[in-house]
Amino acid sequence: MRRIGTSILAALAAASVAAPPAAAQDAGESGGAEWITLGTGGGPVTNPARSQPANLLRFDGQDYLVDVGDGAAMQIGKAGVQTRMIDAIFISHLHFDHTGGLAAILGLRFQTNGQDPLTIYGPPGTRELVDGILASMVPGATANYGVAGAPPVDHRAGIEVVELRDGQNARVGGMTVTVRSNTHYSFPPDSELAKRFQSLSYRFDMAGKSITYTGDTGPSPAVEDLARGSDLLVAEMMDIPLTISRMMAANPSMPQAQARAMQSHLATHHLAARDVGELAARAGVPAVVVTHFAGREADEPGHLRYYQQAHEAYDGVFLIADDMDAFQP
Amino acid sequence: MRRIGTSILAALAAASVAAPPAAAQDAGESGGAEWITLGTGGGPVTNPARSQPANLLRFDGQDYLVDVGDGAAMQIGKAGVQTRMIDAIFISHLHFDHTGGLAAILGLRFQTNGQDPLTIYGPPGTRELVDGILASMVPGATANYGVAGAPPVDHRAGIEVVELRDGQNARVGGMTVTVRSNTHYSFPPDSELAKRFQSLSYRFDMAGKSITYTGDTGPSPAVEDLARGSDLLVAEMMDIPLTISRMMAANPSMPQAQARAMQSHLATHHLAARDVGELAARAGVPAVVVTHFAGREADEPGHLRYYQQAHEAYDGVFLIADDMDAFQP
Repeated sequence: MRRIGTSILAALAAASVAAPPAAAQDAGESGGAEWITLGTGGGPVTNPARSQPANLLRFDGQDYLVDVGDGAAMQIGKAGVQTRMIDAIFISHLHFDHTGGLAAILGLRFQTNGQDPLTIYGPPGTRELVDGILASMVPGATANYGVAGAPPVDHRAGIEVVELRDGQNARVGGMTVTVRSNTHYSFPPDSELAKRFQSLSYRFDMAGKSITYTGDTGPSPAVEDLARGSDLLVAEMMDIPLTISRMMAANPSMPQAQARAMQSHLATHHLAARDVGELAARAGVPAVVVTHFAGREADEPGHLRYYQQAHEAYDGVFLIADDMDAFQP
Repeated sequence: MRRIGTSILAALAAASVAAPPAAAQDAGESGGAEWITLGTGGGPVTNPARSQPANLLRFDGQDYLVDVGDGAAMQIGKAGVQTRMIDAIFISHLHFDHTGGLAAILGLRFQTNGQDPLTIYGPPGTRELVDGILASMVPGATANYGVAGAPPVDHRAGIEVVELRDGQNARVGGMTVTVRSNTHYSFPPDSELAKRFQSLSYRFDMAGKSITYTGDTGPSPAVEDLARGSDLLVAEMMDIPLTISRMMAANPSMPQAQARAMQSHLATHHLAARDVGELAARAGVPAVVVTHFAGREADEPGHLRYYQQAHEAYDGVFLIADDMDAFQP
């Protein structure tokens, strides 16, 4: 695991330090915030080299998941964290690349006798998501270990859901968590769907340090406001023309209406490298970590282009995350 | 990816051949059966080096998942298979290390416009599992890509569930699939729970080749019967004393009743290396692949002991699988 202190980086350009998971735990328990990019791929096409979107935020002895794509349970294990140790989960939006690993987290937590409080924060729809998963667990939890006379165990124990909407905040452990609705969804403002659904960006304020996580979003003044003054911005980034060309090549028979919807989604609901630079510059953050790489990256040298494009608008630290990188703001 | 033809192995002892995923696909499309151990860890404690239980069976151009633990979506991607390409899923039992990745498979399939038939076979309780996951998907599928005016997409399209019980079989593609109830659960025979739940072992008969997969089980005459004459036995294996000692060390405050239930579960519901050898010998199979390693394996040299213990009863091929190994019976 690469560990990167962005405050040092801001002064000294780039450095990377390998450290064992035990050290990461010490950092968490001493109150220093640490952000671990568990999965730096973006879905829904899986990436053999990058796990699906998920992050581990460690602060003041607590372990928080921020998005929870497929494979999140294994990824936290690599940092020495088991499912039953997770104290809260923050979901940015309801795309399945960001939520697909939640069922495994809840199932394995149950199966390791996890009963401590676990609050799941997310946008409207999160309660229905969690309720469905808990319903899916009924037969497995009832059969449990298949031992005659074993005491029944409540698989819902400790689990709470808190739905958040644009502008709301919550006190969680020693943090203040604030959300803004971003531009990853673009339903017409007065539509039924706009009333029902929001895609959220999160800001975590912790003892003098602050991290803002965009989740998935297009350019958004609300996210700029949210990130203003943060020590670290964790931003999605997408190579939009490349992703559209790959999608069309992989789906030659996609119906036209669906293809148009997908192209519109990709072109307006995500951040190109230049957009990330502009967001970081306007928000005045000293350091940006980018994540959420879609599809396979045969073209690793393309990363140099992303640095260049981001730095057209921004002169702070710009880092491309790999799975299991740890950042200390 | 290591590829191993067990028919060659049976004659020549061990050999391993590296080959790109493209070759694996050719093998599948030419009708030759191939079994890829996607995840060779066992849960519920995750293993940083081995993904959770999942396998990919490829035959006659079709792709089948056999168990579907956390991370299965990423693992099939490593073999060049995307979620929407899966033709059927076979679930052995309802423990969450074997089912935790199903929600991600269904979610990412939906998000990549997967609508082809996908039948999910499993023991009683599988319908409730799948129904819960499909219910959890409603808000995400309704918001979908967040594009104004996009046509609604039915996230249930193509999905069917078939529950199987001891002794039943099904025709799937060009295969005959037969199940037996094994000893992974030990509810009293006339109890309500015994009527409701079964843990299944599967046999896949394909054009003159046959693979039997134990799922999780203790010693079981029914599984011996099922495996008799198979070309390949894929068996769970557990270092039972080691696993019990680790569980007790990791859970010093576990309530006594729960600790007794867990110890009883581990001691009677799993196969030690010697048990695997006895099963293979009685079933008369030429080759065994073992999987489902619990917890971290600091002790890799312990593998030598497993070979020794298995060969006390069995003189065929005995292979310890790693993630993404491919076996051709």
